[in-house]
Amino acid sequence: MAFSNQWRRVRSTLTNTNIDTTTKTTNNDNNNNDSSFNMISDKTQTQADYEPLLQSQQQPTHGYDLEDDARDGSGKKYRSVINRQTVLALVCGLLLYPTVFWALKPLCMGLTRSSPTEYAAATVPTTEGEVPTCHTADLLPAHAPRKNIWKNLSIKEAQEIRKWLWQPEQGLNLTKSTLATESDNSVFLIEAFAPKKIDALAYLNGSTAIPDKYAHAIIHHGTSEQIVDYLVGPLPISERTTLRPLTEIYHRPEIPYNAHSFLPNMSTFGFLISSTFAPLAEVTQDLFGGVAIGQANDTLIAAGTAPFSYDGEWRRMWAGLKLNVPGHYLMPVDLYAYFDLSGTDTSKWHMVRLVYNGQIFSSTDDFKQAWSNGTLMRSKKPVIDPTDGWTTRSRVGKGQKRDLDERAGPRSVSFDGLRFRVDQEEQYITWMGFSFYLGFERDMGLNLWDINFRGERIIYEITPQEAMAQYSGTDPHQATTVYLDRAFGMGASVKELMVGYDCPSEAVYLPATIHTATGSSTRYNAICVFEKDSAKPLSRHTGWLKDEMGAIKGYELTVRSISTVGNYDYLFDYTFQLDGTIEIRVSASGYLQGGVWDKTQHPYGHQIRDTTMGSLHDHVINYKVDFDIAGTKNSLTAATLEVEEITTPWADDAWGSTFTQQRVNRKRILTEDDSRLEYPKNMEGNYVITNEDERNAWGYPRGYAVHPGASAIHLTNLDCKRTQDNVNWAKHHLSVTRRHDHEPYSSSIWNIHLPGEPTVDFYKFFDGESLDQEDLVAWINLGTHHIPRAEDSPQTLTNVATSSVLLVPFNYHDYDVSMESMNSIILNAAEPNQPWLIDENGVKPSYCLPKKVPDFTYTGLKSWDEDGNPATSSSILEERKIAEGWHGIHAEFFNEL
Amino acid sequence: MAFSNQWRRVRSTLTNTNIDTTTKTTNNDNNNNDSSFNMISDKTQTQADYEPLLQSQQQPTHGYDLEDDARDGSGKKYRSVINRQTVLALVCGLLLYPTVFWALKPLCMGLTRSSPTEYAAATVPTTEGEVPTCHTADLLPAHAPRKNIWKNLSIKEAQEIRKWLWQPEQGLNLTKSTLATESDNSVFLIEAFAPKKIDALAYLNGSTAIPDKYAHAIIHHGTSEQIVDYLVGPLPISERTTLRPLTEIYHRPEIPYNAHSFLPNMSTFGFLISSTFAPLAEVTQDLFGGVAIGQANDTLIAAGTAPFSYDGEWRRMWAGLKLNVPGHYLMPVDLYAYFDLSGTDTSKWHMVRLVYNGQIFSSTDDFKQAWSNGTLMRSKKPVIDPTDGWTTRSRVGKGQKRDLDERAGPRSVSFDGLRFRVDQEEQYITWMGFSFYLGFERDMGLNLWDINFRGERIIYEITPQEAMAQYSGTDPHQATTVYLDRAFGMGASVKELMVGYDCPSEAVYLPATIHTATGSSTRYNAICVFEKDSAKPLSRHTGWLKDEMGAIKGYELTVRSISTVGNYDYLFDYTFQLDGTIEIRVSASGYLQGGVWDKTQHPYGHQIRDTTMGSLHDHVINYKVDFDIAGTKNSLTAATLEVEEITTPWADDAWGSTFTQQRVNRKRILTEDDSRLEYPKNMEGNYVITNEDERNAWGYPRGYAVHPGASAIHLTNLDCKRTQDNVNWAKHHLSVTRRHDHEPYSSSIWNIHLPGEPTVDFYKFFDGESLDQEDLVAWINLGTHHIPRAEDSPQTLTNVATSSVLLVPFNYHDYDVSMESMNSIILNAAEPNQPWLIDENGVKPSYCLPKKVPDFTYTGLKSWDEDGNPATSSSILEERKIAEGWHGIHAEFFNEL
Repeated sequence: MAFSNQWRRVRSTLTNTNIDTTTKTTNNDNNNNDSSFNMISDKTQTQADYEPLLQSQQQPTHGYDLEDDARDGSGKKYRSVINRQTVLALVCGLLLYPTVFWALKPLCMGLTRSSPTEYAAATVPTTEGEVPTCHTADLLPAHAPRKNIWKNLSIKEAQEIRKWLWQPEQGLNLTKSTLATESDNSVFLIEAFAPKKIDALAYLNGSTAIPDKYAHAIIHHGTSEQIVDYLVGPLPISERTTLRPLTEIYHRPEIPYNAHSFLPNMSTFGFLISSTFAPLAEVTQDLFGGVAIGQANDTLIAAGTAPFSYDGEWRRMWAGLKLNVPGHYLMPVDLYAYFDLSGTDTSKWHMVRLVYNGQIFSSTDDFKQAWSNGTLMRSKKPVIDPTDGWTTRSRVGKGQKRDLDERAGPRSVSFDGLRFRVDQEEQYITWMGFSFYLGFERDMGLNLWDINFRGERIIYEITPQEAMAQYSGTDPHQATTVYLDRAFGMGASVKELMVGYDCPSEAVYLPATIHTATGSSTRYNAICVFEKDSAKPLSRHTGWLKDEMGAIKGYELTVRSISTVGNYDYLFDYTFQLDGTIEIRVSASGYLQGGVWDKTQHPYGHQIRDTTMGSLHDHVINYKVDFDIAGTKNSLTAATLEVEEITTPWADDAWGSTFTQQRVNRKRILTEDDSRLEYPKNMEGNYVITNEDERNAWGYPRGYAVHPGASAIHLTNLDCKRTQDNVNWAKHHLSVTRRHDHEPYSSSIWNIHLPGEPTVDFYKFFDGESLDQEDLVAWINLGTHHIPRAEDSPQTLTNVATSSVLLVPFNYHDYDVSMESMNSIILNAAEPNQPWLIDENGVKPSYCLPKKVPDFTYTGLKSWDEDGNPATSSSILEERKIAEGWHGIHAEFFNEL
Repeated sequence: MAFSNQWRRVRSTLTNTNIDTTTKTTNNDNNNNDSSFNMISDKTQTQADYEPLLQSQQQPTHGYDLEDDARDGSGKKYRSVINRQTVLALVCGLLLYPTVFWALKPLCMGLTRSSPTEYAAATVPTTEGEVPTCHTADLLPAHAPRKNIWKNLSIKEAQEIRKWLWQPEQGLNLTKSTLATESDNSVFLIEAFAPKKIDALAYLNGSTAIPDKYAHAIIHHGTSEQIVDYLVGPLPISERTTLRPLTEIYHRPEIPYNAHSFLPNMSTFGFLISSTFAPLAEVTQDLFGGVAIGQANDTLIAAGTAPFSYDGEWRRMWAGLKLNVPGHYLMPVDLYAYFDLSGTDTSKWHMVRLVYNGQIFSSTDDFKQAWSNGTLMRSKKPVIDPTDGWTTRSRVGKGQKRDLDERAGPRSVSFDGLRFRVDQEEQYITWMGFSFYLGFERDMGLNLWDINFRGERIIYEITPQEAMAQYSGTDPHQATTVYLDRAFGMGASVKELMVGYDCPSEAVYLPATIHTATGSSTRYNAICVFEKDSAKPLSRHTGWLKDEMGAIKGYELTVRSISTVGNYDYLFDYTFQLDGTIEIRVSASGYLQGGVWDKTQHPYGHQIRDTTMGSLHDHVINYKVDFDIAGTKNSLTAATLEVEEITTPWADDAWGSTFTQQRVNRKRILTEDDSRLEYPKNMEGNYVITNEDERNAWGYPRGYAVHPGASAIHLTNLDCKRTQDNVNWAKHHLSVTRRHDHEPYSSSIWNIHLPGEPTVDFYKFFDGESLDQEDLVAWINLGTHHIPRAEDSPQTLTNVATSSVLLVPFNYHDYDVSMESMNSIILNAAEPNQPWLIDENGVKPSYCLPKKVPDFTYTGLKSWDEDGNPATSSSILEERKIAEGWHGIHAEFFNEL
């Protein structure tokens, strides 16, 4: 009897609210630091540590016993029916709710919980012959040695904080976000706030109790035109709990109100945009074709750009129009409107100008007049063929079926059972000597903490910091766009993974929870964890002396989440390798932000359809990697390869005694004055984070090298007002600073709109401090210079649009520790006609029947509103609005306007 | 009934000698150019196209019928016994046979064919329940539309040529290579010579008959101190067959005899090296410890360096000594001898000097005297612990067993059957719209020809050209070493793949055949072909409008061979992707060429054991990529990203109307004067091979971009006498030339020893010719700057030591053609409580029992001697000598010397 692979989609969360822990029998706070070798304690683990998902599989009631069960092939037939709630809940604006309605609709009223949906689990017929059923997807438990002190707030914790914030004693005078106008006060975010590192380490080292838990809460004070990020704690809420502005992590005393993004209630802007475009109905119909107004299926939408401001003094946005068709990102039309949206007095908001085909109009009347009097220079009318489908994922070239493509391709199966463990309560993972905790946040999504390898912490924290995209073009939309996706919420934009497509079908899928303006939500299957065979040996050799010949299989563990931020999809991968190497990789897919093609756009990309182009843009994604190499006291060494002329006594006349050779020039980088870095030309050198006081057996400071992989780039345009001070991290390949709790992030939600005076100016981290045996953070960039091509249509390809860096042990060990691997072979050659001597460490692939791949299902989201009530499922339209952000601003015109 | 997966190791060869083609019923020379869509013709394929390996599986006698059989799960039980010859044949010096014996031994006498070894096939119990057996590894046939005109000679063809060369009429006065002295004439190589491209294309296009076949034969003329590369043909041998020097591909009128490498008969050098070191037995015993002389298990070996010469005027070699222990590459000792081996008068060969611990001695007497009179400054004596095993692959850290490592890791299985086809006769492969032919050669191994995608040729040829390694250090061995592995024979050094370790267990394994000095040999399991899931979607999106949401599985096909050149292992991968992208990747493993550590070596690497260091070195590997983008008339465009200042009429005062943005600056590179290229700084730009006369739908010249992946480097040291003119290809990231039949390779076997005046000087390709709509070749480098670290011990890791480039469609298509893929999903969102709309194109993973993974076996080599007789199996010692090249020169001392 084995657990079903439906356990993969177990509904535990990054919070613990959904999990019944009442029968938990083990102590998660024990002193077992060597958590990757806990097979014995596994036997004491009861199934009740996990939320029972498949009722039929709660038998037997004893805990999962590896040794008894792992190769048990009794395989009785059964069919189970799952009572599984698949509540697709309504989210009233998860965050940044840019949807504009002509009039506010009571979206968030009358929330009721939908009935649980019943569906049958995949049947798993078992064999009755000699071949047992594999325990392919049985997830083995792990016990985190400590509580996960970085995980986000549970639904319950967030609800308690929200309730407390609403208490009159806090004096916040809050309005519900779905109703709040610009001049009201409302909650934007509630989230866990990481403990101080010194407290965290003391707890991890077992010398102190768990540190006090804190949250931060971002409140929009419309009444006073202020945004305040508050620190709330200690938690849980008690008489000790206080509220204070969290200012120490920002570089401005205040957060300008004009730096805020769209909020759930967009009725004012809706009125403005509608009143702007409604009088132009006849014009847009003529110029762009088939664009009637006020009809549900035939209208225009707008896409906003960023930044809204330079320094927060004002707030202005370009909106480009698009056809409201599937894949509208690729169907821009040639009309751009510039709006002034400064301050909270929305009566002063106004349209500043219109641009069409390079012609500028200061009012809709002027534009309409030029159109009607024939002075308008027309651009090409877009071709609209709703049956074409080129902007969608519908299959093309059906006559071009590729040979054998009707067969399902190869699939990875752990015939012998999964080899990693997950503590779902603590979001703690172990694999082949690695252990780490997961965190999740609204801004940037998944992050990793306390990464240990073979019992030593190597990295305290890996957290993505920001993802920027800067575009070019001749039109106002492309030319002015600089997105910083932290504002949109990379974590909030993490979508459910498509099982078997986004990750292997046998991956373990985990949920993620955030708490935003409109309430709390848990996304199922938000994170996947899987082991894969890299399909090449990690090391190998053919040799003929004793034990020279053999290979180690190149297994890897990947943790992935995918964030769809409007048009673009980012795949965030963290991959662990047997030698201690960690790869950080980001890959991109999804839609381009298409531009309107005309010949003037030639320097800025390529035409990809009749009136559509792919516009040149840079993506740069910044990661914080807080190395702790054999402790927190670390240093930075830059090695460069140089060519030297040497004279040797033993070289003879034929060659000459003087010649050139390369050498390594190692240089310690001692202060932050010199720690904004480029990878050396032609990769001639490297950067190593070392601990100069901890040496390997050969006398070298133990270290990890930052080894650039694919497309290790920084921003191209280093001198632009729109990126003046808010993306300083993007201007170097990597940077190293001394770590401080008050420098937790290289960016902030508001940086997007404050290039001139950002709330976090990364360069202010560089104040000459010592990097000599201090706690260091490497800020590492990935990205692509994306010159779109026809093959980016309909969606960008992850094989080319990918960027990676390897964090590589560099004299950290005394030798390659992957030699410990048992999934390896040693071959010793035989004399003729004698059998080869083969040593596979007794590891043999199980011969068994793997479980059937379940039918594809998609689960969705579970949400709670600001009052803590479960929210109803969203309609497709609502989901779309949440998903598209301000890439899909709905200006639903009505004739009566 | 299906073929067994033992078919993977079928014994067909890159020649056709071993294959019974008498019952072949189909016409391989038909006009079906669209070979990837040949399912109907498959049904006419008879099993007799393939050599029957498993006798029990020749039933039924009808051919494999995809539609009848593909999901047939009748699964009868059977047990088969295979009569399979696993002859480990003696190879009397495959090539470059550096082994030195004190006296010549009659190694190649009395060759007899060993008895066939019988062994049982893995039993495949079948289920009798509901679940059928998978046809996991059934290799489907393909029919090459044309004969493979690039494959190497068959055993029979080579034997006929060899016989013909020996005929007195040819006047070559040949001696068998195993007996030949330096002053004799002998055959070094016999190999197919590629047809002229114009003839090949005419044949491929169906306009002419198959072009005449030619071979080339390299003869060492010791009698006249000449090396001649002869063109022999047409073939088969007939009255028309002639022999002429093949000079048009070389840049010197003659090939200097001093540029030759070691030959099978090394008796003269053996005597020299033995007579040099034998008198030092007491000294080496004292200085290096435990190094007795004349005992089989306790001796020294020498490792030669390259280059032997500057321009061919003389021939000198440094030999460094090593302990003759497993992993001796990491056990160098501090003694270096410089030998003069010029010319064919071996009586003049002599030792020039000795170097020990930086001290120079002009004779062994001087050295011995310094040792005995106490004036010798001693270096650290190496620690010898034969039980240590640190230089081997024996598992370390057995107390450090990693949790769950006793389980076999995940394995890729094509439950639905393999999706690629192989024509084993023609070495032709099809997969998902790709088709190509394989070739194989002694110098550089595997190569690919006539690569088509979706019915269009995109690349005529991908051939590795050369692999260089240049070392640095204070000792003569490291400081002077520049290897060019073409000389050693990357193809000759291709070793049998370890099934399941070097490639997935379900890969299809192919053999490779070469014909060298000592005869012909076929290496089984030399090449593997497998499809894998990249474990990330090739494209994906989460969207909410019709058909926006979905993903394509990222399947890839990889062709791999692994070459072990002495210490180092190179993994050569060619990976095909669904969108038309091809990745070329090389990864390295195996042993470092270890150096002797002392503190003066600090700038040149790192200490990795008591007296051993890893020495700084550059690897650069050059590939010829002969693009044919929509025909042979191609051009080259360089795009760079530039930052421009623009003034826009629509920008308002807040931002200023003048600002900077990036733009693409496209520049045609019109002649060879400008086509030696670096990748742009910070990857700001790209290179595209285009056809300016063939446009995609949007008016762009169709093209393929060269997209650097990991570690896209060129050589560091650009100004060194030892690399003066022989590796000019290595001095740029890539170069583009106009293609000529007389410029087939960027290097040659003899380039290694002729830096001053190489037989192929790559720069001579650059003579100002037009690159404007001409047939172009891109010469692309991969490589690593290898700064060894402790983790390179015992063997280098392929995850870091890897380098890649992507060849990427760039406006080649009108859109992404991978959208054709059926292994894809489209999701359409449902209204609340309605089921999601899921379209998986009817592709569902089969639910079936995969075949058992057979027990690991290792097959070996089948050889024929110069007379065409099957050779006996080699002893381990002989295999070792063949494998190690001049990295393991055996100076077997005997006291009596």
